[in-house]
Amino acid sequence: MQKHNFFAGPSILPQSAIDATIEALKDFAGTGISLASVSHRGKEFEAVMAEAVALFKEILNIPEGYSVIFLGGGASLQFAMVPFNLLKTKAVYVNTGTWASKAGKEAKLFGEVVEVKNPDYFSLPKNFEVPQDADYIHVTSNNTIYGTELLTDPDYGIPLVSDMSSDIFSRPVDVSKYALIYGGAQKNLAPSGVTFVIVKDEILGKMDRKIPTMLDYRTHIKENSMFNTPPVIPIFTALETLKWIKANGGTEGMLKRNNAKADLLYAEIDRNPLFKGTVAKEDRSIMSVCFVMNDEFKHLEDDFAALTKSKGMVGLKGHRSVGGFRASLYNALELSSVQALVDAMKELEQKHK
Amino acid sequence: MQKHNFFAGPSILPQSAIDATIEALKDFAGTGISLASVSHRGKEFEAVMAEAVALFKEILNIPEGYSVIFLGGGASLQFAMVPFNLLKTKAVYVNTGTWASKAGKEAKLFGEVVEVKNPDYFSLPKNFEVPQDADYIHVTSNNTIYGTELLTDPDYGIPLVSDMSSDIFSRPVDVSKYALIYGGAQKNLAPSGVTFVIVKDEILGKMDRKIPTMLDYRTHIKENSMFNTPPVIPIFTALETLKWIKANGGTEGMLKRNNAKADLLYAEIDRNPLFKGTVAKEDRSIMSVCFVMNDEFKHLEDDFAALTKSKGMVGLKGHRSVGGFRASLYNALELSSVQALVDAMKELEQKHK
Repeated sequence: MQKHNFFAGPSILPQSAIDATIEALKDFAGTGISLASVSHRGKEFEAVMAEAVALFKEILNIPEGYSVIFLGGGASLQFAMVPFNLLKTKAVYVNTGTWASKAGKEAKLFGEVVEVKNPDYFSLPKNFEVPQDADYIHVTSNNTIYGTELLTDPDYGIPLVSDMSSDIFSRPVDVSKYALIYGGAQKNLAPSGVTFVIVKDEILGKMDRKIPTMLDYRTHIKENSMFNTPPVIPIFTALETLKWIKANGGTEGMLKRNNAKADLLYAEIDRNPLFKGTVAKEDRSIMSVCFVMNDEFKHLEDDFAALTKSKGMVGLKGHRSVGGFRASLYNALELSSVQALVDAMKELEQKHK
Repeated sequence: MQKHNFFAGPSILPQSAIDATIEALKDFAGTGISLASVSHRGKEFEAVMAEAVALFKEILNIPEGYSVIFLGGGASLQFAMVPFNLLKTKAVYVNTGTWASKAGKEAKLFGEVVEVKNPDYFSLPKNFEVPQDADYIHVTSNNTIYGTELLTDPDYGIPLVSDMSSDIFSRPVDVSKYALIYGGAQKNLAPSGVTFVIVKDEILGKMDRKIPTMLDYRTHIKENSMFNTPPVIPIFTALETLKWIKANGGTEGMLKRNNAKADLLYAEIDRNPLFKGTVAKEDRSIMSVCFVMNDEFKHLEDDFAALTKSKGMVGLKGHRSVGGFRASLYNALELSSVQALVDAMKELEQKHK
């Protein structure tokens, strides 16, 4: 049976990227050696790393003066690395959900944190004051657990840092508006195990504190992400995913794809009397679509879960802290998978209306 | 042509582990989803993680009171995490090579470091005094670049920390002698991208300093290495490698295998007038065999490199800081590959004697 992969991450990747990884695990670049067993210092893998960085920059249209590095440890390690490298006295953290909250918590170990937060996570804070003497403001562009997304590149007057773990490459981004963008790659880019960082070079090197070598962005910039052994397989798959993104219209193409999927699903959520969306419409994510059953149909939750499961859909259960359902519509997910989900919603409606 | 993989790391892994990874990338555990795209929170991957930890403990015969965790970031990140978690005022670092030196450098950010070092790296320091008021002593059990190895589990009277990146699972280890053992897994265990830590629980939680969440071992112990998204593919491959180790006699079986390979190669190095070993015989590594050409045959270095290359051997070039040749004889390397290398050494001798 065809599977429809709605997992929140690790999550669906282009089949071409997975197929290429399988071939490379059999024989990497004609070396006769598996990708799992080649030296990262060999010219074949050095070419992969160089091409991945170049294509990453090309597709996101990253201006001069920015570096792109690949690290291990996940976005959660970035929650500490960002303040280690950038927080002198004070930073602003926009708390829009679980992950944003975790990022702010780490920053408090390094200096004063001004938190911006709505009473709940079902909408994004707007029109808030930003202290202009802060070192930076940190946002989480897409909130996977609650389903809100910042679909613009805001200007707060101070350096902007964004965790784009779950929406990088889903839309064009004006990188020049940012001081630093980071993310775990295990949604739109690669299998888990690699983290990307886009950083404006001139913001680094201004701290008095001693930064451990591995936690200093300059270490990895200087060594082209090869200061220590990089996660070879995930970086290889990332390159193949980037090739797929480019072949499918780049970030403009992805945005078109993603809007089509999100529009289809939100239209059904709004139309179908059994379901309702959970977040403010203007803040709805095109990557993480959260919805619940209307109160009078709550008893059908298990039926809907069973129905979608029977049709090969996986990963639709809402995060344990929110409940209900969540469909992650990452780049590689096909419109036909969203159509299958919408069809299941209609089918349940037909049975119970 | 059959390849003989002597890479220093990432390096040769059991073919069964690579084959299983390829199959899982096609369809993981009958889920119909690729290993690259499954949720780490699904029961199938949680089973992989649990079995990997259990088998890791079983094969190394790890006593009660120790935790095993899998992290990202590489051993280089451990160079900072170890002192973050364990260094109160003073630590002893035995500097036996490039990696040991890097570990000591990071520790200096956290407290006083007493360094133990020979005039060069071609032998291991012995019979040195260990200040008994130090928080711990750090050793690097195998030095890949120079080719020395500590083949015993020493007792220095204070907590012992060892970087076993390049010899874990190569021999039985008395874990009870150690406070903490860590290593990048990309030699004897897995593709690059995952780091293992074996830690005695009671040594943790004694620091006054604030430790960032991701750098605190207790975070990962508490969450069974699932505090954040783990490197799924490398952990899967690690489990398959552990199964192979168990099926091949465990650490006793590995030691027998590795001694046979090392004995064969060192015997030829010592016999063949063209070559000589570079380190003190009593400190010779069974994992990283370093050798050079005798002075009167130095002009044959390129010939030997070409000869071995023509026979499908890769990864034999010595590290740029040492020169000459290095054969990494990790667990998965077959005796027949070492025999092929020895045959090439004899062939060169026949031509030029």
